[in-house]
Amino acid sequence: MTAAFADRLIEAIRRHGSPLCVGLDPFPERIPALFGDAATDPAALLKFSSALIEIAAKHAAVLKPQLGLFEQFGEHGYAVARLACEQARAAGMLVILDAKRGDIGTTAEGYARASLGAHPGFNADCVTVNAYMGLDTLTPFLDLAERDAKGVAVLVRTSNPGARDLQDLDVGGAPVWRRLAEMLSPLSERLKGGSGWSGLMAVAGATYPEEARALREAMPNSLFLVPGYGAQGASASDAVAGFVTTRYGREGGVVNSSRAVSYPAGAESAKTLVDWRDLIVDALIAAKMELKAACAA
Amino acid sequence: MTAAFADRLIEAIRRHGSPLCVGLDPFPERIPALFGDAATDPAALLKFSSALIEIAAKHAAVLKPQLGLFEQFGEHGYAVARLACEQARAAGMLVILDAKRGDIGTTAEGYARASLGAHPGFNADCVTVNAYMGLDTLTPFLDLAERDAKGVAVLVRTSNPGARDLQDLDVGGAPVWRRLAEMLSPLSERLKGGSGWSGLMAVAGATYPEEARALREAMPNSLFLVPGYGAQGASASDAVAGFVTTRYGREGGVVNSSRAVSYPAGAESAKTLVDWRDLIVDALIAAKMELKAACAA
Repeated sequence: MTAAFADRLIEAIRRHGSPLCVGLDPFPERIPALFGDAATDPAALLKFSSALIEIAAKHAAVLKPQLGLFEQFGEHGYAVARLACEQARAAGMLVILDAKRGDIGTTAEGYARASLGAHPGFNADCVTVNAYMGLDTLTPFLDLAERDAKGVAVLVRTSNPGARDLQDLDVGGAPVWRRLAEMLSPLSERLKGGSGWSGLMAVAGATYPEEARALREAMPNSLFLVPGYGAQGASASDAVAGFVTTRYGREGGVVNSSRAVSYPAGAESAKTLVDWRDLIVDALIAAKMELKAACAA
Repeated sequence: MTAAFADRLIEAIRRHGSPLCVGLDPFPERIPALFGDAATDPAALLKFSSALIEIAAKHAAVLKPQLGLFEQFGEHGYAVARLACEQARAAGMLVILDAKRGDIGTTAEGYARASLGAHPGFNADCVTVNAYMGLDTLTPFLDLAERDAKGVAVLVRTSNPGARDLQDLDVGGAPVWRRLAEMLSPLSERLKGGSGWSGLMAVAGATYPEEARALREAMPNSLFLVPGYGAQGASASDAVAGFVTTRYGREGGVVNSSRAVSYPAGAESAKTLVDWRDLIVDALIAAKMELKAACAA
């Protein structure tokens, strides 16, 4: 039997010695020309994704494909995202599909099957979801995740400036995101592994470390998916603000880096695959070591 | 120059004499066997969608493909959804792609291009979005909609029981959804047409007519997308509760019906295309006339 997603994730993080999650964000205008012209040829997208995953698998436990950026390439992009998930899993990575889905009843079942389900689904290990429509909209994802030892990452407090608009509205002395976290906490038992961690993850923006600490209080067992590290401006220590000290060091989730590791300075104009690969490896090692240091501190 | 989406939509509703929006919800287990086995063959999905759109275009102004149900078929399903949008537009329908997307910055741009943009995008007239992440996440959709005379339908108060969990939380005397509506109202100017209606639509569940009336106060110019009519239990008069009386009768949005018109009693086991078509036509006419009566009352 497959181990619970939370256990697989925490074990992979310990093995790599770092909570680095590699964000796979295909920007058509930033994919190096050496892979072809992504704006006109989906094969360039496939080659870029494939080359990046091959390297990422050596340095990080987790891949997070950003589905919205694949979808702009139409059904070919959608298919490449699926192939990327397949390749990453075959290379030993865990895949968190960043799809931010959310809908009611049978449609939520459709999205759950599409993201977490086996072929023709993405067969991702975990999927990001939006709970604005209510807890009942999470049920199909939680049901599938519980059955197949997978995870669900709920948007709680995101890393963008506009997050304040709805998430921070005050509800009787606590913000909306805190109320959501309190509702999610009992549900986290459903995806709890032997490690004590739960695969009902919370998306907790690295740009708000205070909120991450408060969120940890409200959701003590949930692993966090932390966006906003690197290009979005948060430091490594900010990024792990919601982690807790254990005998393995500070742990409690994964920290995503997308642009800083996929498009480091010089990579976009690299002339050869070898030059490009060297830049990506350096960027991945730098991110990995910085996060490792933050978790050891 | 193409007329504003809101003007095209309200004009099409007046022409049809009914605010009926046909929901295209492909459930693999409910697609009639006469189209083939949808569980194993994406061609069955294509044939079913195509046959339904051909009839729907004669009786309704709007098609609403439910993308989550297409995605469960993988990239082939995703491609069929795009073809469905193309066919519906070619047949003169307006297309509201029900994708419930929502993300930050460049990813939101990706989703906006994927849904509203031309090939390889869906080229939909309007797309449903989730604003939990904040108003800044709507900007890429609004920018594209304003430029290309399209629409954006924001989830405000949905029709499912769990909608209460977050949307009804009390923020200083008003629920979260009302606060969201108040924030959206000034933005509605961006997509306002010559008719006075705005293509910044609000999704307002038919199962809560009281809320629909309150939402109309907060968003006087926005056209509503009303789900929950028919199979979800709301009556035609509940469904148009948020509409206003004009010289054209009651108007102010579209009312979606999915299951009641796509899978009427007997349709799933229809033996011939002619039998199936008769049942669909009857169901479409019944829904159209019921809504027409509710708007005349």
